[in-house]
Amino acid sequence: MIHLYTYTTPNGQKPAILLEELGLPYTLHKVDLGKGEQFSPEFVALNPNSKIPAIKDEEAGVTVFESGAVLIYLAEKTGKLLPTEVASRAQVMAWLMFQMAGVGPMFGQLGHFRRSAPEPIEYAIHRYEQETLRLLQVLDLQLQKSDFIAGDYSIADIATYPWAAAYEYVGVSLDPYPYVQAWLKRVGQRPAVQIGMAILTPEFKSALAR
Amino acid sequence: MIHLYTYTTPNGQKPAILLEELGLPYTLHKVDLGKGEQFSPEFVALNPNSKIPAIKDEEAGVTVFESGAVLIYLAEKTGKLLPTEVASRAQVMAWLMFQMAGVGPMFGQLGHFRRSAPEPIEYAIHRYEQETLRLLQVLDLQLQKSDFIAGDYSIADIATYPWAAAYEYVGVSLDPYPYVQAWLKRVGQRPAVQIGMAILTPEFKSALAR
Repeated sequence: MIHLYTYTTPNGQKPAILLEELGLPYTLHKVDLGKGEQFSPEFVALNPNSKIPAIKDEEAGVTVFESGAVLIYLAEKTGKLLPTEVASRAQVMAWLMFQMAGVGPMFGQLGHFRRSAPEPIEYAIHRYEQETLRLLQVLDLQLQKSDFIAGDYSIADIATYPWAAAYEYVGVSLDPYPYVQAWLKRVGQRPAVQIGMAILTPEFKSALAR
Repeated sequence: MIHLYTYTTPNGQKPAILLEELGLPYTLHKVDLGKGEQFSPEFVALNPNSKIPAIKDEEAGVTVFESGAVLIYLAEKTGKLLPTEVASRAQVMAWLMFQMAGVGPMFGQLGHFRRSAPEPIEYAIHRYEQETLRLLQVLDLQLQKSDFIAGDYSIADIATYPWAAAYEYVGVSLDPYPYVQAWLKRVGQRPAVQIGMAILTPEFKSALAR
């Protein structure tokens, strides 16, 4: 059995989407960030960095933290959604890292300065908004070339979808990015994505039942 | 022949260290960020995100961008510095992502607000300093358990070293982190690391000659 330790955030949604895509059975464990449960000794034993998500694959004797590493682990375990052919594998890894090192942290900083910082700091909001729009532009140009981010549907799409879908939360418009919009619609129609996005919310059971 | 497109920054040093560790021959191409060369059509064809590093492996017909993806590609190509055994591989991937999604972006933001922002913004400096110190604390606890970040010396160490070595640049002290200090010394003694860190600097040739 795979144990998924997660919460209702973009990084927390990624492994849920992939587990659903792969049809792997899993047990869901809520790590309530609002209550600081990521700092509990039990969770720190899984992820010394106190961030969700993490998984424990009991039979394999494997624990993994960091959403990107969890995606790679599950894709390699099943041989799905991450090519083995070197050239296309390299592109999927590159775009996965683009999300992990770029889209996630930068959307995250914009969200912080727009919604959580105690008072508005124009310089910081402008800095992260410009970078967020630049990343969306890069993504839009890439999606102009193909239906998915790196060739076929892959863990690069799964990693990026929950963050791109949060565009309203971070306060940016997708109007200038028609290919990103079409891709969001395309990926968002997948049942596994709908279930994974609803994880730990009241909508989770009804998404499962669809 | 492998072509490495890079610059004298922590992300640019990573693949140089790994290529030296692996003993792979490579041709070095300077992408001068000061001159905006990362926006040239030639470079954008390699990395649509206009960031260094990127590599082109001519014989294999592979291009890769994002330092983390370049490290994975070269490690998989040679079967070195990234375990194939699932449990230890997962840990190396997790700590690689910890660097890519955490250490890199957060040290980077601290560096920006400390050294590049037009005026000091206390809130932002404090935010990124606190996160940088927290990440160093996580790393210190991990290095208390073993000589390297994820078991044996691996691409997780290579990814993290150039950023941790930049602690003075971002203005933090390593005094509270003795295990990080010892690890910096341990990793920094490796000839490949000395050469990779000196890439594109006047010290490069003398490091090579050592």
